Amino acid sequence: MSTYPAPLARLIQELSKLPGIGEKTAARLAFHMLKGKKDDVFNLAESIGKLRKEMGLCRICFGFSEVDGQNGETAICWVCRNPERERERICVVEEPADLIAVERSQEFKGLYHVLHGTISPLDGIGPDALRIKELIERINNEVVQEVIVATNPTMDGEATALYLSKVIKPLGVAVTRIARGLPMGGDLEYTDVVTLGKALEGRREI
Amino acid sequence: MSTYPAPLARLIQELSKLPGIGEKTAARLAFHMLKGKKDDVFNLAESIGKLRKEMGLCRICFGFSEVDGQNGETAICWVCRNPERERERICVVEEPADLIAVERSQEFKGLYHVLHGTISPLDGIGPDALRIKELIERINNEVVQEVIVATNPTMDGEATALYLSKVIKPLGVAVTRIARGLPMGGDLEYTDVVTLGKALEGRREI
Repeated sequence: MSTYPAPLARLIQELSKLPGIGEKTAARLAFHMLKGKKDDVFNLAESIGKLRKEMGLCRICFGFSEVDGQNGETAICWVCRNPERERERICVVEEPADLIAVERSQEFKGLYHVLHGTISPLDGIGPDALRIKELIERINNEVVQEVIVATNPTMDGEATALYLSKVIKPLGVAVTRIARGLPMGGDLEYTDVVTLGKALEGRREI
Repeated sequence: MSTYPAPLARLIQELSKLPGIGEKTAARLAFHMLKGKKDDVFNLAESIGKLRKEMGLCRICFGFSEVDGQNGETAICWVCRNPERERERICVVEEPADLIAVERSQEFKGLYHVLHGTISPLDGIGPDALRIKELIERINNEVVQEVIVATNPTMDGEATALYLSKVIKPLGVAVTRIARGLPMGGDLEYTDVVTLGKALEGRREI
């Protein structure tokens, strides 16, 4: 039984499909949209509506890129077309959101390559389902010195890193892995044993 | 400095304006919309876009109502046009969302009247800024026996209830106030003194 008028009920249902948004939060958001500034609500609807039309994947790194307004094709992304980036270093990530996370750290000045997933035998995802072929192509056609594997420190992420190392090292390119250890602000006492083990294993002279 | 492509940055900015949605949650929702089902995202945009066009206020009770597709005017709401409701009882609430909250309790079979605010001298909101004139008109033109004041148990809500009692009682209509006391599942030990005082004051024989 719904006590909401149809347009409101429909919106609440659509909002509830978003991650972390239950029916109560959805109702609160919907009421806000009914009472808030009309322009804000219109702009939000437009932004969501245009998102999928205006965003695509970069032809080089497969990260997010804007669609070119003139020919409707996805343009090369803002990182790949930046002449100041170090083109001999490629950071490999699982998802476009990870690219943005690394970018926000401002610690990396090279290029990226987005795999769009990880090797996951249990789910039947092999190397061919990822953008690994395209990465090898980039390494073969360009002067690449180092591939930094920044997949997540999970079983699948580690397996993917190992696989990449196995296929890329023979091409004469250094393959490195981002450090795993205690997060900044972390607490030794409450750190799980695997992380602590990795932190000890990855110790460096100071 | 934004590390997001423009359409994504714009969406994140619009989402951040919603209550309880910070930039991190906004980014998570936006990424979901980029990866999720295209239909869901389109439906969400459409639902938000249409909301303000399709929803208006009922001409009788000023609760939410759907706009009539034929003449573009707001129709009388689903409660007011239901012939099975007890028309001699009117529940007065502050906001349309409160109407829906009471409706969900399934305890009330009468009609509603939405004030759209409370009397708030500190904010310069007097009785004329609310839908009180329209409530008096309904009482004068229809056979009303009881007005149940269900404004919030706050300073302004109580003040509004008192004011309504003062102007409606002389019309020969009973004015009642919803009970204030311990919430179901509440704990005496942790209940604030004002609530506990109200609970004692409102005690009933069992």
